[in-house]
Amino acid sequence: MPNDTHNPNLRSWVESANDPATDFPIQNLPLCSFLKEHDGHAHAHYGTAIGDQILDLTLLWEAEAFPEIADEGAPGPAQDLLEELDAAFEYPHWMGIIDRPELVALLRREAQRYLLDGPAGGQQGRRLRQRALQPIATTNFLPPVSFLNYTDFYASIHHATTVGAMFRPDNPLLPNYKHVPIGYHGRASSVVVSGTTIRRPAGQQSPPDDNPSAGPGFGPCKMLDYELEVGCVIGRGNSLGEPIAISKAAEHIVGLVLVNDWSARDIQRWEYQPLGPFLAKNFATSVSPFVVTTEALDPFRCDGWSRGPGDPEPLDYLRDEHDRSRGGFDIVLEAFLLSKEMAAKGAEPVRLSRGGLKGMYWSFAQMIAHHTSNGCNLQEGDLLASGTVSGQAEDSRGCLLELTWAGIDPSTGKPRPRRPIELPTGEKRTFLADGDTVILRGSCEREGFRRIGFGECRGTISG
Amino acid sequence: MPNDTHNPNLRSWVESANDPATDFPIQNLPLCSFLKEHDGHAHAHYGTAIGDQILDLTLLWEAEAFPEIADEGAPGPAQDLLEELDAAFEYPHWMGIIDRPELVALLRREAQRYLLDGPAGGQQGRRLRQRALQPIATTNFLPPVSFLNYTDFYASIHHATTVGAMFRPDNPLLPNYKHVPIGYHGRASSVVVSGTTIRRPAGQQSPPDDNPSAGPGFGPCKMLDYELEVGCVIGRGNSLGEPIAISKAAEHIVGLVLVNDWSARDIQRWEYQPLGPFLAKNFATSVSPFVVTTEALDPFRCDGWSRGPGDPEPLDYLRDEHDRSRGGFDIVLEAFLLSKEMAAKGAEPVRLSRGGLKGMYWSFAQMIAHHTSNGCNLQEGDLLASGTVSGQAEDSRGCLLELTWAGIDPSTGKPRPRRPIELPTGEKRTFLADGDTVILRGSCEREGFRRIGFGECRGTISG
Repeated sequence: MPNDTHNPNLRSWVESANDPATDFPIQNLPLCSFLKEHDGHAHAHYGTAIGDQILDLTLLWEAEAFPEIADEGAPGPAQDLLEELDAAFEYPHWMGIIDRPELVALLRREAQRYLLDGPAGGQQGRRLRQRALQPIATTNFLPPVSFLNYTDFYASIHHATTVGAMFRPDNPLLPNYKHVPIGYHGRASSVVVSGTTIRRPAGQQSPPDDNPSAGPGFGPCKMLDYELEVGCVIGRGNSLGEPIAISKAAEHIVGLVLVNDWSARDIQRWEYQPLGPFLAKNFATSVSPFVVTTEALDPFRCDGWSRGPGDPEPLDYLRDEHDRSRGGFDIVLEAFLLSKEMAAKGAEPVRLSRGGLKGMYWSFAQMIAHHTSNGCNLQEGDLLASGTVSGQAEDSRGCLLELTWAGIDPSTGKPRPRRPIELPTGEKRTFLADGDTVILRGSCEREGFRRIGFGECRGTISG
Repeated sequence: MPNDTHNPNLRSWVESANDPATDFPIQNLPLCSFLKEHDGHAHAHYGTAIGDQILDLTLLWEAEAFPEIADEGAPGPAQDLLEELDAAFEYPHWMGIIDRPELVALLRREAQRYLLDGPAGGQQGRRLRQRALQPIATTNFLPPVSFLNYTDFYASIHHATTVGAMFRPDNPLLPNYKHVPIGYHGRASSVVVSGTTIRRPAGQQSPPDDNPSAGPGFGPCKMLDYELEVGCVIGRGNSLGEPIAISKAAEHIVGLVLVNDWSARDIQRWEYQPLGPFLAKNFATSVSPFVVTTEALDPFRCDGWSRGPGDPEPLDYLRDEHDRSRGGFDIVLEAFLLSKEMAAKGAEPVRLSRGGLKGMYWSFAQMIAHHTSNGCNLQEGDLLASGTVSGQAEDSRGCLLELTWAGIDPSTGKPRPRRPIELPTGEKRTFLADGDTVILRGSCEREGFRRIGFGECRGTISG
């Protein structure tokens, strides 16, 4: 339920945070990690975004700027908490904090209190404020947490249906889809933070359809694509052999990030049978630098899932009435493209799609309950991504594979030539070209609340 | 090439190591990690196996029992090496050692020198010998390294063909098989060390074939299986975007382990389309406690792969003549079963299969070159497993799915009823029952060399 941290009237002394268009008002306060130079070395610091700035939480912790967390002299639990936080600020990757929702909430409240409009408390307070801020634009971000394991789902029925129709026009959706939150293990080592350059992968590609005996080729991917996804970051994990009940699953999510699951479609087409995507996906997955906490997202909750007439109800281990009505997040999602030529001409990125997370067939809680239903253990910092988020409308499709698809020609039974997207420079794209930058954005708006956003998840292709 | 550490005449003062049947003569010396109690806490120590004992390398390092590694007073590189090893012994999971083949070789030689038959060097030497040994049978093993990422391949063409025939009798092998070392990402968090109890997973199972509209059920797996595999452990990784050339791939392997990739066949059948196995596999994967180093395995090298008449040659990025002739390991592999009833009656485990790693379609070097061909980064401690190792002979098949398969009845076009395995107690098994223990073993023998082995990879099913 919305609490006082969501009060839309709160204002910050960081002026850019009071701009109605900012992703990061004082009501958001996502988690991030970044490199800070001091003592001649780069150190990993924790931070939060406020307006166009990063607030250095590690520096504030060391400066004892959160006096209300616990009084140094107080005995008992308060003292324990101080020591736990001391230790946690020494760990990398928010470990030891994100597995405890009460600590995340506490730090978010303390950061909010620190940032609230008001006097700085003398010269020392003013200097600390200056030292604790740096522009987002020049910050050297790390992945917000250490993504120990990465699982990618397939939770948009519109994506599954459109892609399925490319291979099986008469039977696009497989019989398991409406029963099983389909997922597969991705590659954790190649999850990178927004801004990291993405090298075009090389790989095997199918023999020509009209000459299968020619054998496959090997070379740079010719059908490089992005996938617009949302990922949930696991806070508290579970022990091996101990499933997480659907009614408890939401408690294991610390927050959400934007995910671009870069995909090499030609490699995928040739390799994926019978064990699923592998090299088509594991060369890189980009995530936004900010974990927007479930607490900040609380005012933007919506139904987690619904079922149309004739659709089966989820099996018991996937069904929870609270999750049905409140397990979703009403997030508007957009993908943009900026070609090298556009950038050189000073053009703005062009929007490829606009859709939203609302309306996914499976909720994150269902993905967690399913993932652990066999006893599989999730770990602090795991990333569970939604799969490509595509809506029913053509302009809400979350990847080029879908956006440039022109359907099957009924007279030949074969796919029509893809319909390229025309850029303002006159360039055309069916898939990504070298120098292209893909930018994902996400935001939440609701009457009576400040708009919050996810920042950008951005990556540029290098050849 | 075999070196002086392989000399078959070397003997140890640990008498059990001189037994010709031991897996762990002084010529083997695999890497392991185990828990040791001292100061009231359990600490992770490094060790090696010798005969029926574990030699505590951490204790010996701290006791400065490897005087020949570097002289404390020596300046320059020797001093650096000492400091690096001091640091490495503080890390968990052999990190900082296994990424440097020269350090692994150095420690192996020092351990061998320490264990060589000869006088103990006075009272102090005798006491240290006693303190540094403990029986394998009572050792509390950890996974030998931290398996950061786990990838499972499908490198036995006999396994792929037999399993393919169950689903596609007329076309068992997919067109990509002979070109692509097919693999998929497994779950690293649920990789457990031999001896860990395996809980029978629950999961969704297909609707009945004769009544698809009944929908799937959810309950305990009814077709629980093991898979006999060999895994290679990655020492030095590669940077994202920098493929490992096939000619360099073998240098990235520190050694091999036995792997049991437990599989829930009924869950797999229902979930695996279109993105591959997920919950059917990720509830547990067992590994043997010992990484048998590639140096110890060097005398048992064999051809990495061969191609039959009409088979395509591997593409250039997968082809290396040294790998073709020497990239394999001639390891005999066996699987055993011991039911609860057999154990209660004091029966010995019954052998289910006997086969070998020699003859796989793809070598580990090819798996590494393929895995990184798109720029994917491998990390120190990654596990790349072979997939089920099955030979052409029926009794060399590495899982129950194959061993109890009775083929398709040509008159009906449907599978014949499975052919159960009869145990000495009269019990029958088509798949695993609660209380069953599966034991995998591996060993290498060659004229002129001491036999070496892998120890056991063992797991018992609990309901």
